[in-house]
Amino acid sequence: SRKYTLAVLPGDGIGPEVMAEALKVLDAVAARSGIEFTYNHQLVGGAAIDAVGKALPAETVAACEASDAILFGSVGGPKWEKLPPNEQPERGALLPLRKHFGLFANLRPGICYPALTSSSPIRPDLVEGGFDVLCVRELTGGMYFGQPKSRTTLPDGDIEVIDTMVYKKSEIVRIAHVAFKAAQLRRKHVTSVDKANVLTNSVLWRETMVEVAKEYPDVTLAHLYVDNAAMQLIKAPRSFDVLVTENLFGDILSDEMAMIAGSLGMLASASLGKPKGDGLYFGLFEPSGGTAPDIAGMGIANPIAQILSSALLLRFALGLEKEAASIESAVKKVIDDGLRTGDIFSGAPGTRKVNTKEIGEAVIAAL
Amino acid sequence: SRKYTLAVLPGDGIGPEVMAEALKVLDAVAARSGIEFTYNHQLVGGAAIDAVGKALPAETVAACEASDAILFGSVGGPKWEKLPPNEQPERGALLPLRKHFGLFANLRPGICYPALTSSSPIRPDLVEGGFDVLCVRELTGGMYFGQPKSRTTLPDGDIEVIDTMVYKKSEIVRIAHVAFKAAQLRRKHVTSVDKANVLTNSVLWRETMVEVAKEYPDVTLAHLYVDNAAMQLIKAPRSFDVLVTENLFGDILSDEMAMIAGSLGMLASASLGKPKGDGLYFGLFEPSGGTAPDIAGMGIANPIAQILSSALLLRFALGLEKEAASIESAVKKVIDDGLRTGDIFSGAPGTRKVNTKEIGEAVIAAL
Ligand SMILES: CC(C)[C@H](C(=O)O)[C@@H](O)C(=O)O
Ligand SMILES: CC(C)[C@H](C(=O)O)[C@@H](O)C(=O)O
Repeated sequence: SRKYTLAVLPGDGIGPEVMAEALKVLDAVAARSGIEFTYNHQLVGGAAIDAVGKALPAETVAACEASDAILFGSVGGPKWEKLPPNEQPERGALLPLRKHFGLFANLRPGICYPALTSSSPIRPDLVEGGFDVLCVRELTGGMYFGQPKSRTTLPDGDIEVIDTMVYKKSEIVRIAHVAFKAAQLRRKHVTSVDKANVLTNSVLWRETMVEVAKEYPDVTLAHLYVDNAAMQLIKAPRSFDVLVTENLFGDILSDEMAMIAGSLGMLASASLGKPKGDGLYFGLFEPSGGTAPDIAGMGIANPIAQILSSALLLRFALGLEKEAASIESAVKKVIDDGLRTGDIFSGAPGTRKVNTKEIGEAVIAAL
Repeated sequence: SRKYTLAVLPGDGIGPEVMAEALKVLDAVAARSGIEFTYNHQLVGGAAIDAVGKALPAETVAACEASDAILFGSVGGPKWEKLPPNEQPERGALLPLRKHFGLFANLRPGICYPALTSSSPIRPDLVEGGFDVLCVRELTGGMYFGQPKSRTTLPDGDIEVIDTMVYKKSEIVRIAHVAFKAAQLRRKHVTSVDKANVLTNSVLWRETMVEVAKEYPDVTLAHLYVDNAAMQLIKAPRSFDVLVTENLFGDILSDEMAMIAGSLGMLASASLGKPKGDGLYFGLFEPSGGTAPDIAGMGIANPIAQILSSALLLRFALGLEKEAASIESAVKKVIDDGLRTGDIFSGAPGTRKVNTKEIGEAVIAAL
C-alpha cells in the first residue's frame, strides 16, 4: 500500500474553500486506488501573518520538508497590501518557498477548453476549438534572486538602483530539458522566448536551447523575442505547444496566457524542485489565479484550478499518472456536462450555474 | 516663413513606399500653411548595410544632427537575420540612435478606432467603441544599456551571463513628467507599471511616480504589477489612459497593446530626446509596425502609421499642433469614409479595399 504525506497550505481568500474540494477529490481517488494520503495542514500567507506574524513560518517550512509534496492554495488580499513588499503574503511566502526548495521549473498549462472558448477575451474565430499551451517558466534565476540588488545615493544627490539578471548555463540546460521532455509527451514543439537582440543573458539562453534541442530530434524548436511573443499569444494562441522562458518573462507571459485562456479559476500550476528519480520531482502545486477576496467565504469560487493542481501533484511528485489523468478527465466531463461556477457561466444553453461544493461533488461522481 | 529640415530615413521593406506617402502629406500641409520642409534622405538599416556595410552610417547620424527631427520608416528583414544581433538592422540602427540622441521617452499611442474594432483580436464586447491608450516607455535606461553586461566561464566550466537593470531617480522623474503632462491633455489618468514586489528598481520607480504625481493634482495615478498589466490590457483596454513604464516592460507591453488595438499599420510612435524649450523635443518618429517584407514593394502596405508619425513629428518636434491635428483628422475621415488597405479590410459594408497611394491621396484630399 502506498502512503504519502502532503503539506497542505490553503492560505487566504478562496484558498481554504477550494482546497477543501481538492482534498475531497484526492480522498476519493485514494479510496479507489488503495493509496493513503496524510494531510499536514499549515499556515501560510496572510493567515500566517495574522496568526504568528510572518507569511512563511518556520514550522510550515519544516512540515513541507517532511512531506512528499506541497499542495498550496493562494495567498494575499487587501488586508496585507500595506505591508512592505518583502513581508506581504505573496512575496513573503512564495519567493522564500521557491528559493528554499529550489523550485526551478514552473509549469503552467494554459488550457482553453473547447466548451469554454466564450470565456476567453479573444475573438471567437482565433480561439475556436480551444487551445492547450504549456508555459515552462524558469523560477529561481534571473532578476528574482540575482545579486547585486542595490540602492545608492550618488554624490550629486541622485539615487541609483540596480537589479541584476544572472543565469548560469547549467540552469538554462536544466529548464530546457523540462521543456523538451514535456513537448515529447505533447505536440512536440517548443517555442523559446528571449530578448537575444538586447540581453547577454538571452544570447546564452538561445544558444543553449539550440544545443539541448539536438538531444530531442523529434521536437521542433522556434525562437521568439519577448515583445513578439506577447503579440503572438494573443493573435495565435493555438500556434503554441510548449513555451519556455526565463523567470521574469515567464511571470509576464504566463499571466498573459492565462488571461487569454479565459478562466483563471481553471488553471493549475506546478513548481518543480529537486528531482527524486524516475522523472519525479519534489514540488509545490497551486492554482494560477489569486485569492479572489471579493468572493471569499461565499462558497461560489471555482475549485477546478485547485483540483487540477492536485492532479499535477499526483503526476509530477508521486508518479500517479493514471490517478492524475482520471481527475483531469473527470473535470473535462463536468465541464462538458455544463456545470459552471459564476466565473465561467455565460448562460449558454445546456449549462447550469453551480457552487464550489457542487463542482467538487460532480468531479468525484465523474471519477 | 518657417523652414525646417527633416532627416528622412525610409529603411527597408515597406519603409520607402509608406514614407513616400507621408512626405506627400507633409508637402500638402506645408503648401497650405506657408511652411517649408527640406528632406534630407539618408540610408539606414538593411539598405545601409547593403550599400555601405553598416546599419547606421556616420553620415546618417550627421544628417540627423543637422536636422530639426528624424522621420524614420522601418528596418529589418529576412535578408539580414543571420548577422550577429549587434549588426542587424533593428538593433544596429535603433539602439545607437536612441543612445546618441538621448531619446528617453517613447510615446506609442495605441488607438483602436471605433470603425476598426473588428480588426482587434479582442472580443467585440471588450473593445466596443474603440479605445485610445498612450504608452509612455522609458527608452534609454534599464537593461538596454545598463552595465555590467558580461559572459564569464566559471572555474567549473559553467558559463555565467549578467545583464544589469539600472535607473537613476532623475531618469524616472523625467519620464514621469512626460507621462503626467500627456495625461493632462487627455483623460487625466496615469497607470504606472512596475514589479515593485521583486525589483529594487521598481520600488524607486513607484516612489518616484507617487512623488511626481503630487505636482499634477488633476491627474490620478494607479499602479499595476507588470504581470497584472499584461492581463488587464487584454481584458480592459478601455480602462487605460496613459500607461508609463520602464524600458523592457515598455517594449513588451507596448507591443502587446499594439496587437490588442488591432492594426500595427495604423500605429505611430515618437521617441523624444533633448528638450528644445516650449515643450518641444528633438525626436525620432516612426511607425510601430515592422517592415512587412512579405508585401514590400507591392504598393499595398498601410501608410497611415507613417503618416501619423509625421503628425507626431509636427506636434512634438516643431510645435505645429494645428497642422498635426489636421493630419490626424484627415486620417480619421479616410477611415470613416471606408477606405481600407488589406491589413484592415474585413469586407464590411461601406468599406473599400485600396492601395498605399490611394490612402495617401485620400488623406491629402481630406486635409
Ligand atoms: C508574487 C510574485 C512575487 C510572483 C512572481 O512574480 O513570481 C507571482 O506574480 C507569481 O507569478 O507567482
Ligand atoms: C529592435 C529592438 C532592439 C527594439 C527594442 O527592443 O527596443 C524594438 O523591439 C522596439 O521596440 O523598438
